[in-house]
Amino acid sequence: MASHIQKFKIALCQLLVTSDKERNIARARELIEDAALKGSKLIVLPEMWNCPLSLQNLSKYAEDIDAQDSPSISMLSEVAACHEITIIGGSIPEKANGQLFNTCCVLGPDGQVKAKHRKVRIYYFFPSDSEIKKTGDTTFRESDTLTAGDTPTIVDTDVGSIGIGICHDIRFPELAMLYRSRGAHLICYPGAFNMSTGELLWELMQRSRAVDNQLFVATCSPARNPNAESDYMIWGHSSLVGPFGDMIATTGHDEATVAGEIDYSMIHSRRENLSLAEQRRGVIYKTVDVLGQIA
Amino acid sequence: MASHIQKFKIALCQLLVTSDKERNIARARELIEDAALKGSKLIVLPEMWNCPLSLQNLSKYAEDIDAQDSPSISMLSEVAACHEITIIGGSIPEKANGQLFNTCCVLGPDGQVKAKHRKVRIYYFFPSDSEIKKTGDTTFRESDTLTAGDTPTIVDTDVGSIGIGICHDIRFPELAMLYRSRGAHLICYPGAFNMSTGELLWELMQRSRAVDNQLFVATCSPARNPNAESDYMIWGHSSLVGPFGDMIATTGHDEATVAGEIDYSMIHSRRENLSLAEQRRGVIYKTVDVLGQIA
Repeated sequence: MASHIQKFKIALCQLLVTSDKERNIARARELIEDAALKGSKLIVLPEMWNCPLSLQNLSKYAEDIDAQDSPSISMLSEVAACHEITIIGGSIPEKANGQLFNTCCVLGPDGQVKAKHRKVRIYYFFPSDSEIKKTGDTTFRESDTLTAGDTPTIVDTDVGSIGIGICHDIRFPELAMLYRSRGAHLICYPGAFNMSTGELLWELMQRSRAVDNQLFVATCSPARNPNAESDYMIWGHSSLVGPFGDMIATTGHDEATVAGEIDYSMIHSRRENLSLAEQRRGVIYKTVDVLGQIA
Repeated sequence: MASHIQKFKIALCQLLVTSDKERNIARARELIEDAALKGSKLIVLPEMWNCPLSLQNLSKYAEDIDAQDSPSISMLSEVAACHEITIIGGSIPEKANGQLFNTCCVLGPDGQVKAKHRKVRIYYFFPSDSEIKKTGDTTFRESDTLTAGDTPTIVDTDVGSIGIGICHDIRFPELAMLYRSRGAHLICYPGAFNMSTGELLWELMQRSRAVDNQLFVATCSPARNPNAESDYMIWGHSSLVGPFGDMIATTGHDEATVAGEIDYSMIHSRRENLSLAEQRRGVIYKTVDVLGQIA
């Protein structure tokens, strides 16, 4: 593993996303530059930050990243290089080989795309009548539009070894356990939970992934947009959680940049107190990382 | 799987444990009988309910369950048969072959011991100076005294398929995932978290195990005893959690019986809304149940 900074500032840009893609890109650039000027070395964007969260319109906003025909990723590349920062680029709709993916690019301080994560777990949700009544949430089937990725993504960066998950990926403990076994210091989940799952699960999931694996977790949601054309209402509450499940920094549902300090020595001291990994009982069960080693 | 009741009352007896074993057994019987008379079909006791939580004294309170030289389990057997209820017998120190275990017996409505779970994860905890200062918690090494069990325990009962974990076992997501894969409807964790881990983790752990596996979780702690000779101060807060991480019933740290209703149809409707199991991506990773099938 490359040597990396142990202690640094991270910023989570909870962007208010509109239907105007150019405006979204310009606003994201503003928030990133502002955070970089205030000293953040790692910046995380929300899931689907260049387009409204409406499955019908995704293809209109989709970009071909591999063909380098991507104004959204070009902006991230420019600003990462200019400020020498690492960016976890939330996600945008990616078109490739006639398919659509929900894709996160990781940009290094040289502006290069270091990794590309395609959301592994495509979300579907059939709320009950009482849930619809209570929250206004409606049925949401990503699988009608999006193709699922098939690879976990962990990236060695200047600011640690970072695992990537997008939104619904956070619901699966195995993915976080796999990143832990591959040496992750931090897992970043760009995500956009809705009102019912947000209230019940958003904080719970990020805190439990952090505690169970004794590492940092950062989430970044779009801001809630009460004027959005979509009927998918976003929870917000982007957060940074420490390796003991401690909430280091968080916010409400409006546009905001959440800034917090990551100190990887906390991982070491937490594991020294009580090492869950050493206590695992491989005799009874194992998590098998099919693409890699046995965890 | 045997057919079982779908909807029933459960009671968690948060007993105030003293250094007087006979008194503990008598008081436990009172609480169980009271709960049974009020209609509970399943009753859960705390971890180490017949003795104070002090490693030095465990052998004094230990009983030989296999040799049927166990006043604690005899009482549970009697009261289970008398009221035709199922009891998850918290845990007591068990002596067997010159070793000490932290052991939970499950009693059926015929009074028979249906299963015996020996705590798999032996706890140790080295608090930092600041934690000692803040909470009074001190170093605690079960492994000096206790031997770890080596088998997960899931029992088919009249009130569903129940997985058992004791206290620190709850920190390991794999055990709960394994029970889920073997068809558990409910996981019972008798446990006695201390002040610092209790505040940060107790609710978080039970809610995340329930949500991640879409099943019920019940925990039962001893009551806090401010006059205990031991310097291990107990958190309390025994709780029943539903398959969406919803807190159905809970309490504070005093002696109390927490009663709640379990309705297994909620598991079905939750999984129908959104089936995490179906969405697992075995291509990428698996949890291997070494003693059984692949989950």
